[in-house]
Amino acid sequence: MTKLWGGRFEKHPEQWVDEFAASIGFDQSLAVVDITGSLAHAKMLYKCKILTSEEYSVIESGLLVLKKRAENQELIFKTEYEDIHLNIEKLLIEEIGPIGGKLHTARSRNDQVATDLHLHVKKQTLSVISHITSLQTTLLKLAKQHVETIVPGYTHLQRAQPVSFAHHVMAYFWMLKRDKERFTDSLKRTDISPLGAGALAGTTFPIDRKMTQDELGFSDLYPNSLDAVSDRDFAIEFCSNASLLMMHLSRFCEELILWSSQEFQFVEISDSYSTGSSMMPQKKNPDMAELIRGKSGRVYGSLMHLLTIMKGLPLAYNKDMQEDKEPVFDTIETITGCLSIFNGMMKEITINTGKMKEAVNKDYSNATELADYLAKKGMPFREAHEITGKVVFSCIQKGIYLLDVPIEEYKAYSPLFEEDVYHDLLPETAAGKRNSEGGTGFDAVRDQLKLAEETLLELAAIE
Amino acid sequence: MTKLWGGRFEKHPEQWVDEFAASIGFDQSLAVVDITGSLAHAKMLYKCKILTSEEYSVIESGLLVLKKRAENQELIFKTEYEDIHLNIEKLLIEEIGPIGGKLHTARSRNDQVATDLHLHVKKQTLSVISHITSLQTTLLKLAKQHVETIVPGYTHLQRAQPVSFAHHVMAYFWMLKRDKERFTDSLKRTDISPLGAGALAGTTFPIDRKMTQDELGFSDLYPNSLDAVSDRDFAIEFCSNASLLMMHLSRFCEELILWSSQEFQFVEISDSYSTGSSMMPQKKNPDMAELIRGKSGRVYGSLMHLLTIMKGLPLAYNKDMQEDKEPVFDTIETITGCLSIFNGMMKEITINTGKMKEAVNKDYSNATELADYLAKKGMPFREAHEITGKVVFSCIQKGIYLLDVPIEEYKAYSPLFEEDVYHDLLPETAAGKRNSEGGTGFDAVRDQLKLAEETLLELAAIE
Amino acid sequence: MTKLWGGRFEKHPEQWVDEFAASIGFDQSLAVVDITGSLAHAKMLYKCKILTSEEYSVIESGLLVLKKRAENQELIFKTEYEDIHLNIEKLLIEEIGPIGGKLHTARSRNDQVATDLHLHVKKQTLSVISHITSLQTTLLKLAKQHVETIVPGYTHLQRAQPVSFAHHVMAYFWMLKRDKERFTDSLKRTDISPLGAGALAGTTFPIDRKMTQDELGFSDLYPNSLDAVSDRDFAIEFCSNASLLMMHLSRFCEELILWSSQEFQFVEISDSYSTGSSMMPQKKNPDMAELIRGKSGRVYGSLMHLLTIMKGLPLAYNKDMQEDKEPVFDTIETITGCLSIFNGMMKEITINTGKMKEAVNKDYSNATELADYLAKKGMPFREAHEITGKVVFSCIQKGIYLLDVPIEEYKAYSPLFEEDVYHDLLPETAAGKRNSEGGTGFDAVRDQLKLAEETLLELAAIE
Amino acid sequence: MTKLWGGRFEKHPEQWVDEFAASIGFDQSLAVVDITGSLAHAKMLYKCKILTSEEYSVIESGLLVLKKRAENQELIFKTEYEDIHLNIEKLLIEEIGPIGGKLHTARSRNDQVATDLHLHVKKQTLSVISHITSLQTTLLKLAKQHVETIVPGYTHLQRAQPVSFAHHVMAYFWMLKRDKERFTDSLKRTDISPLGAGALAGTTFPIDRKMTQDELGFSDLYPNSLDAVSDRDFAIEFCSNASLLMMHLSRFCEELILWSSQEFQFVEISDSYSTGSSMMPQKKNPDMAELIRGKSGRVYGSLMHLLTIMKGLPLAYNKDMQEDKEPVFDTIETITGCLSIFNGMMKEITINTGKMKEAVNKDYSNATELADYLAKKGMPFREAHEITGKVVFSCIQKGIYLLDVPIEEYKAYSPLFEEDVYHDLLPETAAGKRNSEGGTGFDAVRDQLKLAEETLLELAAIE
Repeated sequence: MTKLWGGRFEKHPEQWVDEFAASIGFDQSLAVVDITGSLAHAKMLYKCKILTSEEYSVIESGLLVLKKRAENQELIFKTEYEDIHLNIEKLLIEEIGPIGGKLHTARSRNDQVATDLHLHVKKQTLSVISHITSLQTTLLKLAKQHVETIVPGYTHLQRAQPVSFAHHVMAYFWMLKRDKERFTDSLKRTDISPLGAGALAGTTFPIDRKMTQDELGFSDLYPNSLDAVSDRDFAIEFCSNASLLMMHLSRFCEELILWSSQEFQFVEISDSYSTGSSMMPQKKNPDMAELIRGKSGRVYGSLMHLLTIMKGLPLAYNKDMQEDKEPVFDTIETITGCLSIFNGMMKEITINTGKMKEAVNKDYSNATELADYLAKKGMPFREAHEITGKVVFSCIQKGIYLLDVPIEEYKAYSPLFEEDVYHDLLPETAAGKRNSEGGTGFDAVRDQLKLAEETLLELAAIE
Repeated sequence: MTKLWGGRFEKHPEQWVDEFAASIGFDQSLAVVDITGSLAHAKMLYKCKILTSEEYSVIESGLLVLKKRAENQELIFKTEYEDIHLNIEKLLIEEIGPIGGKLHTARSRNDQVATDLHLHVKKQTLSVISHITSLQTTLLKLAKQHVETIVPGYTHLQRAQPVSFAHHVMAYFWMLKRDKERFTDSLKRTDISPLGAGALAGTTFPIDRKMTQDELGFSDLYPNSLDAVSDRDFAIEFCSNASLLMMHLSRFCEELILWSSQEFQFVEISDSYSTGSSMMPQKKNPDMAELIRGKSGRVYGSLMHLLTIMKGLPLAYNKDMQEDKEPVFDTIETITGCLSIFNGMMKEITINTGKMKEAVNKDYSNATELADYLAKKGMPFREAHEITGKVVFSCIQKGIYLLDVPIEEYKAYSPLFEEDVYHDLLPETAAGKRNSEGGTGFDAVRDQLKLAEETLLELAAIE
Repeated sequence: MTKLWGGRFEKHPEQWVDEFAASIGFDQSLAVVDITGSLAHAKMLYKCKILTSEEYSVIESGLLVLKKRAENQELIFKTEYEDIHLNIEKLLIEEIGPIGGKLHTARSRNDQVATDLHLHVKKQTLSVISHITSLQTTLLKLAKQHVETIVPGYTHLQRAQPVSFAHHVMAYFWMLKRDKERFTDSLKRTDISPLGAGALAGTTFPIDRKMTQDELGFSDLYPNSLDAVSDRDFAIEFCSNASLLMMHLSRFCEELILWSSQEFQFVEISDSYSTGSSMMPQKKNPDMAELIRGKSGRVYGSLMHLLTIMKGLPLAYNKDMQEDKEPVFDTIETITGCLSIFNGMMKEITINTGKMKEAVNKDYSNATELADYLAKKGMPFREAHEITGKVVFSCIQKGIYLLDVPIEEYKAYSPLFEEDVYHDLLPETAAGKRNSEGGTGFDAVRDQLKLAEETLLELAAIE
Repeated sequence: MTKLWGGRFEKHPEQWVDEFAASIGFDQSLAVVDITGSLAHAKMLYKCKILTSEEYSVIESGLLVLKKRAENQELIFKTEYEDIHLNIEKLLIEEIGPIGGKLHTARSRNDQVATDLHLHVKKQTLSVISHITSLQTTLLKLAKQHVETIVPGYTHLQRAQPVSFAHHVMAYFWMLKRDKERFTDSLKRTDISPLGAGALAGTTFPIDRKMTQDELGFSDLYPNSLDAVSDRDFAIEFCSNASLLMMHLSRFCEELILWSSQEFQFVEISDSYSTGSSMMPQKKNPDMAELIRGKSGRVYGSLMHLLTIMKGLPLAYNKDMQEDKEPVFDTIETITGCLSIFNGMMKEITINTGKMKEAVNKDYSNATELADYLAKKGMPFREAHEITGKVVFSCIQKGIYLLDVPIEEYKAYSPLFEEDVYHDLLPETAAGKRNSEGGTGFDAVRDQLKLAEETLLELAAIE
């Protein structure tokens, strides 16, 4: 076997070193985009008179043959040709003869791999955005069904105030909206063509980088060739955005796991998204939610992986950067899978509104209403808070709830109390009347759902 | 001492638990923004008729007194009041009496701390953007002086092709441009008001969130109260952007350290940014560059810190989130310091153009020219590459350079070689004629500098 | 101001660069160990005849004066002297005159700072080990009181099998035992003297490294001076061990938070370790548990911080390594604080045995008993498992528990069932009879407690 | 398809959910150890009379058939059976009929997977230790050849003092020794049997855990079943130790990359461990060194991956923990590969002693000798340092070295200077005479090599 770059070398690397260094094991997913890039490059070389019409025609048809095979996953790659680029070049030369060697004119593997990765991450970012939209649509649909379903709202995992279940679900809708915005933002910095940057310095050939940029559908091109070949910001940004997304999913999963426990019983995850135990047959484990929660670690790890690789590397390309692909590919697969699974799981989830209602009726989460009641009658909030604390404390000792306290007793705490206090203490009031903008009041939630709907439509229009 | 929330409690926490839980040790930098937020909240309460004109007037003047003291760092905080919010409320009550207790109507510490952090990170993001612009300006100025300074361009830390030193410096200009774009993007998600979200669910008081949003200069408000109080995405995004920025600086620092070594001697860092050794008096250490390179670890660590905290937390506020401030504050201080120091260091740096020229003349980094020369004469690039490899190998064995090979010898390798090959092999040609867009050719670099200048002006117009 | 290493420099660093580079802001906690190291060094210089008896006597008494002041925190440090070492040297010269300059003979700041850090981390590791032992003692005491307290055991947060509460608590005892072993292991690599390694290469002075090693109580010395000054493994190991420790505490905290929820109510954290809400007076938040859980992020971050710093640094000392101290110091403070608070919290915790019992009686966590019952009668476990699944499924649909199923019905599932099945299904049997070694059976737990007690005694003997 | 745990379920999970949840894609490397564990379990069940002699005999022979096939990689696994354990159980039942279902008596997948992972990590830890020893042996051999080869020693990448090249290489020998110690330490906590812990609580079957422990060659068993199934410390420790190892290799690689540059030229990496450029034929890139340096990111990422997964997980097993395998397996493969490649690379490396000598003769790294010369004649070190600084500064301005300064000039700086100063300034003296223990003096280095040799022999004796 002769290495394509082997002219200068006396000895040939042994097989195992080859394998250690080769990226062909994982960069095969770049095959199609690599050929797409080559097609654009060849066309440009021809238009710029660097290839003759005949040369271009032969090269183009050879590449088209390979592309079809690549799409059908029929290409066979070899470790000895190291990476996807040299493998495809070798296959091209096998297909059309030595003229295939002209394709690499005015190009280097450095700008070529950067182009491939940009094309791939761009495509996958769009796919992720679309997966997020699907999940948002599912959540919005679920929320619409539960505007008046009341559930305890928690802080510190202590019941705090009753909230609309729709409101709770929608909190995640907006997190996902931010995730989408972030991927849209990073897309701007991904959608840039490095092709034509050469190994690091550009080329003396009269190429036209704008032409390949347009051919490949990029929005812009790198204004500096050194930066073009050594920039991996877009890959790190992708993993950073993915980490935030997974963090959000991990939080929702944590809640689903809690809600599926015998202690909460607020939801039941469908059998399709649960599994059993080999030893305890009564178990119905929220495995998918746990797996997704756990996979946050995987994505965080990939982010740290990439940041560590790039720390302190001098310009321009260094072989360390070959290690960029696996974390990016793994992150793509992980978040796409998690979004799909999560979406399916939410579509089939059963909401136990009865258990939620039951929970709300047996706690002190309406205590804020009591304090607000007094504050509205003119008592400084801090005093109202102090009195409410005393009432709650006395209730806990007696084992009763705030709605059970007789009016005389309330009056003994403060003469400001009157019969209408009981109305304010109902969970329906507590949750349903907090109609400050963005609040859990039913009207406020309906406004929120409308806003969410518009958000999805707007984005759809843009996409 | 009585805790503000102590009504329900039988025992008082011991001092050391207080200290462990208290955030007042580090959240004092939020004092001014906390009072600013309270001023906006009080004004809104008055406009919405929740406070009377008299109440508002007393509270406002009390807050203004505290604000002035805070700006002069004259406020004295106590651990027993836990955090900045309760400390200031307590000081307000000391100042104006129990009426101060009305300020907290329709507000919770949860939306209050979120508001403070949003205001602070927004302000600091703008400051970071401005620091980046300053550094870009310095780099642009340096680049303008060195368009025709030729320096070896490296890949794998091996000399690859000669490049314009301006071109090399500008690679970092564009990285910084992306950093700025990222901070501008995250600013959109920081510049949003959580005020009015209450503890988690909004409020039944007839507040007007739009009014406090406008008063505080936010561009939008959170449409969901649960999300408003439990979102820390903007803090994580800040740290993620900061990590990429530090990664870039770590790369530039690595190069400065290399270039300052006796082996390279391409630059000399000014005495102001170097230090000596207590044992080896001849040493002039690039300490600032090393420190900045090392501080990338600090910022990466803070990013991981925040991502870990938020993993798997159920809604809404959890005390874990109190730990969000220190990594953000430390990151702000670190990157602001690093940008300042780096900027100062680059302003005073000495460029040894002589050493750079000397280096370029004694290597094989013009080998690509030889291959390109043959390719331009019609030889498939792969063949040209193979022949060039042989020439270089023979030169290395003889201890000569490509310009030293006689024409007859060249012709023996290929009849395509003619006298004009020597012109192409000159470093000035190799670096100066790569005028593909974004290339290192002198004309291409001049175009790049023009583009950079426009970029800075555009941004200045926006800022 | 004249820098101690300033002879070669033309310009003086500006104040702000000084501040950026200085470590004196955070390395003051090394003051006492730095002087201790200097005392040992001076004594050795005298014994090796590098200092005269008079010189040593003057230097020693000067150092002793400074040490007393350092212990009383009366030393005043200046940023202009950069770090703790130069500050103390300067103070010594102020105290005893230019002869103080002789102290630094045959030493460099590089081996000096390494010595200080070794001494400090060694001391703190011992302190951490002792804190862990205290927490283990508390847990063991708690466990002893609850051998026969039955609580649901969970996998996937689903009730799996009932377990002894003592058994559950003891799981953490053994995690802590491993933590202690790890700190004991890393101590071996901390307890090594770098003193005498000089800047990087040793010295031509006839020093005796064994003498300072013994004087400072180190167990061994570094056999290679380059390694001695550039090794920070022991600091990273400390943070890695701390990360595992915090991971364990985060798991226990998660459980305490769950158990404190209204849904579980298994425990009540004492008021001293809880806090209230400014808006919801009924809340009693498990703040300390949440804070500790959150602080895992802080410690993970510090580990990543250190690993990133050291990645790719050439030998020997680089200024990046100055950044090693803050993450180590912060980790020391964090884990020491967390262990103390956690210990206090566990000492005062209330165990609601009633709620635990109630929970165990109302679930299917005895299903494994049913499968085991059949398996013991000879049915292949997989079949037994299948049948049990059917019984449980039928129970869930009827809303009854396994103890409620009549014997005829059981027999219909399998003729192997007899009356004694009800005995096996009692929680007391399910939990109490799993007496395989390390199991939750009461006898097995008692054996485990005995083993734990011996473990603590053994260690106490060693300590 | 029927799930083994499917009795209770109404719907069957769809294929894609299966795939998401399945671990069979990556846990096949556990096949052999899984069967080994089952063989030990079956034998124990028989000895404890839980299986009859006949049952055991059938099961054992079935397992032995499968084991042989597993060793030849002839087993075919299916995603629908989720993981390696159920796949093998299914294959066993296919092989020997329903009696195969008895194997799982008194066992759960939770203790089974823990056992497999312990066996695997134990085996791999021993393999890693042996790889490290091989690399140490190579380094020691190289060092022995270069005791008197002098090379510049660096701090801050500035030449500091000349050192023996053997000394420099040996610094890494000792780092590797610590790495080995750490793996040996973590082995103690890996070499513990969880088998018999059941799902989480032990079992009521009269099993004998000591018997399977001995059969599998474990040194101890977990004293608590909850801990046994939910402990992943040993996996995290493995990754943490691997991170430190990779950090060391990344440092050495950084140096090899520097030393291979045209600027340094201290070493030449053999062609087998280098690669060329597709565009620049003169390049010989230190690809393996770069790849290994980059792979530090991969291993750091896996550490963070695991730590994140485990953060805040309640007891006992949670599905998140299934995500533990890939980072561990990837880390095993990465570090084993890196150690092998690095070892091969060092065996074939060429040391350019000429270039090293040349470097040492043209710098000021003998300045410390000048300061020490004066200090030895009685001048306080700080003064000696100051004077040396002035001499060096004057030399730099004149473009000469310390050996070129005439004696009169030296005397003008201080009357303490005499002719013998030139002897002290020779690199051979500077490097060769620093014979403090662990110093770079030739005699000290020879002692160090002897110590290293003994260390290797001792360990060999233990292994």
